[in-house]
Amino acid sequence: MSRDPSCLFCRIVHKEHPAQILHQDDQVTAFRDSNPQAPTHLLVVPNQHIRGVAELGEEQGPLLGRMIQVANELARREGITTHGYRLVFNVGREAGQSIYHLHLHLLGGRPMRWPPG
Amino acid sequence: MSRDPSCLFCRIVHKEHPAQILHQDDQVTAFRDSNPQAPTHLLVVPNQHIRGVAELGEEQGPLLGRMIQVANELARREGITTHGYRLVFNVGREAGQSIYHLHLHLLGGRPMRWPPG
Repeated sequence: MSRDPSCLFCRIVHKEHPAQILHQDDQVTAFRDSNPQAPTHLLVVPNQHIRGVAELGEEQGPLLGRMIQVANELARREGITTHGYRLVFNVGREAGQSIYHLHLHLLGGRPMRWPPG
Repeated sequence: MSRDPSCLFCRIVHKEHPAQILHQDDQVTAFRDSNPQAPTHLLVVPNQHIRGVAELGEEQGPLLGRMIQVANELARREGITTHGYRLVFNVGREAGQSIYHLHLHLLGGRPMRWPPG
């Protein structure tokens, strides 16, 4: 599996940096955001180092399917499905991407405002 | 293909309701949001009626891959890739989902704030 030794999220996936991991399987890892913006704020990342959404093509469909499935399962476990939740990918610096390892934000547990930032 | 005759986005997909369609293929349709929240604000939807993210499982991975690929292509066509863009799924009413036909928001052309709503 490709990894980048300088990448924070690669280090979390490989248990070399602390995080509250809620799910890990052969493809994805999910953990709590260290700077939460809602009562529930989790990140779902591929175990493999992929820089971001702009690097994704159709061939990563199965990985995306797994990421969304895990996000849905964690939303159920967190008890936030009745009122709803928001899934966000930031692509690039001005959109707010600070770590260049693909990650899906899952936010919920409070009403979400519009616009989304 | 499953469709709901009362669904606005099904009607847009089938050209029964006006929208500025930017892309359409055998799986997905993309058009401009009628209430834009950024200089570029597009929606990417499956042609098939799927209520939302909560109804997606791993088997919809290929569809998700196509949706992300189309979003990336449209971001390039809109000239917003240098500064970045944000992709958002709202799941449920309190997260801001107003149309119960799966749709991915693509926003860019201005800096995006944090939190994402």
